[in-house]
Amino acid sequence: MTATKGYAVIAPGEAIEPFSFVRNTAGELDITIEILYCGVCHYDIHQARNEYGNTHYPFVPGHEIVGRVVKTGSAVTRFKIGDLAGVGYFIDSCGHCQPCRSGLEQHCEVGLTPTQNGTDKHGKPTYGGYSNNIIAHENYAVKIPETLPLPGVAPLLCAGITAYSALRQWGIGKGHEVAVLGLGGVGHLAVKLAASMGAKVTVLSGSSSKKEDAGSLGASGFILTSDAEQLKAAASSFDFIIDTAAAKHDYNRYLQLLKFEGTMILLGVPPEATDLVAYHLISGRRRITGSFIGGMKETQEMINYCAANGITADVEVITPDKIEEAFDRTVSGAVKYRFVLDMQETKNEEQS
Amino acid sequence: MTATKGYAVIAPGEAIEPFSFVRNTAGELDITIEILYCGVCHYDIHQARNEYGNTHYPFVPGHEIVGRVVKTGSAVTRFKIGDLAGVGYFIDSCGHCQPCRSGLEQHCEVGLTPTQNGTDKHGKPTYGGYSNNIIAHENYAVKIPETLPLPGVAPLLCAGITAYSALRQWGIGKGHEVAVLGLGGVGHLAVKLAASMGAKVTVLSGSSSKKEDAGSLGASGFILTSDAEQLKAAASSFDFIIDTAAAKHDYNRYLQLLKFEGTMILLGVPPEATDLVAYHLISGRRRITGSFIGGMKETQEMINYCAANGITADVEVITPDKIEEAFDRTVSGAVKYRFVLDMQETKNEEQS
Repeated sequence: MTATKGYAVIAPGEAIEPFSFVRNTAGELDITIEILYCGVCHYDIHQARNEYGNTHYPFVPGHEIVGRVVKTGSAVTRFKIGDLAGVGYFIDSCGHCQPCRSGLEQHCEVGLTPTQNGTDKHGKPTYGGYSNNIIAHENYAVKIPETLPLPGVAPLLCAGITAYSALRQWGIGKGHEVAVLGLGGVGHLAVKLAASMGAKVTVLSGSSSKKEDAGSLGASGFILTSDAEQLKAAASSFDFIIDTAAAKHDYNRYLQLLKFEGTMILLGVPPEATDLVAYHLISGRRRITGSFIGGMKETQEMINYCAANGITADVEVITPDKIEEAFDRTVSGAVKYRFVLDMQETKNEEQS
Repeated sequence: MTATKGYAVIAPGEAIEPFSFVRNTAGELDITIEILYCGVCHYDIHQARNEYGNTHYPFVPGHEIVGRVVKTGSAVTRFKIGDLAGVGYFIDSCGHCQPCRSGLEQHCEVGLTPTQNGTDKHGKPTYGGYSNNIIAHENYAVKIPETLPLPGVAPLLCAGITAYSALRQWGIGKGHEVAVLGLGGVGHLAVKLAASMGAKVTVLSGSSSKKEDAGSLGASGFILTSDAEQLKAAASSFDFIIDTAAAKHDYNRYLQLLKFEGTMILLGVPPEATDLVAYHLISGRRRITGSFIGGMKETQEMINYCAANGITADVEVITPDKIEEAFDRTVSGAVKYRFVLDMQETKNEEQS
């Protein structure tokens, strides 16, 4: 059993607060990670506030985790004590279904174990990375090189792989006109990654204040989505739209920006249904699809790609007493571009 | 000028009635077709009843036209007097934009001239095939072989090409599990065509009475869409769903029937927006797209394919006095599977 100090929403509508709990005994293939940094993803907020209606309380958020291995099970071969390790959206899957065998563990047909708000194989609730340690099967953690700035690495574990996997699935790169809708955690990484892969990137944002930032992230174009004239001028101009908006928004106005047979890839999961007008798909054979994080092999590949290309998230590091404020500012878009919790001062009581 | 006797809805809310009008003088590249049969498409009803809010009255419907060439312009080379000819959704396009040059005239960027409810290059309204003749540029008509039963050919010009083009675009055939949603004009042809191409076809229908018919059309499976258990049992089982429903319906319940990376192809154009839940696309990388009729080359290819494979629509032939009844029965799905107007008794007054 591992004593853990974390932060939880104890019941619906309450603010997040300190929460001590005990993690399962680590198994022979598990590594125990002392958490250094954990990103604050919009999804954490949806769940903390029960916006999908499926939150189990107490709820400990956190699935963009970077830390150092402090203990290894007897059969662990991929990590040794002292290594940097990353954990993302899930800490387990069945391992034997067709998606798991194909490196698509995120689409496990038997049952993925999410890092937060899930149920582990012992039948216990999973508590996320707003805490000082986590236990993961070694196959569900990735190696983090020592060369990258760690606060900016944490968001790669969910936001980064979400953008990276979509770009790779669709072979996005040189010769493609790509729009990125929303310049938040996923969006700003989508801009950096797509530009690094050779695509011509345009940011679609509701805030003109983001125009300059879009350029410094690597975008060559900017469209203010509240300006109907700018949208009209951009009709039928993109091969892909990477839609990172997590709040409900109108797909139809953006579908019209796609070229013939262009594709809009949804990465955000608005809790509410959205109106879809079939005409916008039929008139240009346009496509909507979605993508969900990435598999373990692809997540490691993304980390290695980011290390090779010097890509990390732009972050604002906060201490755990600022989580509620960070939630509110994330919802209102007032962050460049991801809050990251510094967990290094969070010690177990016996240690303090 | 060509005197024409047809049937029109004169003003919103009125019943269709006899309507005499004059067509443009035929040009040197035009053919004049004496109409034998014209299919009754659900789209005609949407427009007759102004359900898209863009109907110009008087409105003469009809864009599934088969007839015999009675006059050819001086420069016409593809048709001669006495040939059978077919006209579908459009009678003209710019001819020089990129889609037109690629055989995708239906996606003309300059302006398609629909056979009905459009405006032709002379600035005059276009009147459709619920009439005794039509004039078309020879490049916008297809050759019809004498070997096929003509009433069943008429619906191929819109319903048939709509299904055929979608199947060909996505390379549907042997090894694919294909669901066809809706067993109307387009749906029953989608079943026949997909089965003829080697796909394993399942019909999704709200009416258990269609089960037997589904089998005789070539489907090997049938799912009653009102039965939640049947839908649940079919989760993640189709590579493609060909969605032919023209009235508003819930996409989300059907998306769940798609396999990982499966595609739902919308062929119907419900006048209202439909709720889309992003989760259903994201969780299995599923895709929604649409397809719109086909180009002229592909339409001829479809006619030739149908002739080679003995495929025509199953139709109920009616005289023009039954159009309103046919509209109502089409909306309620009480037709197997397409009404086709016999226009042979509709003569101009000077001829009668």
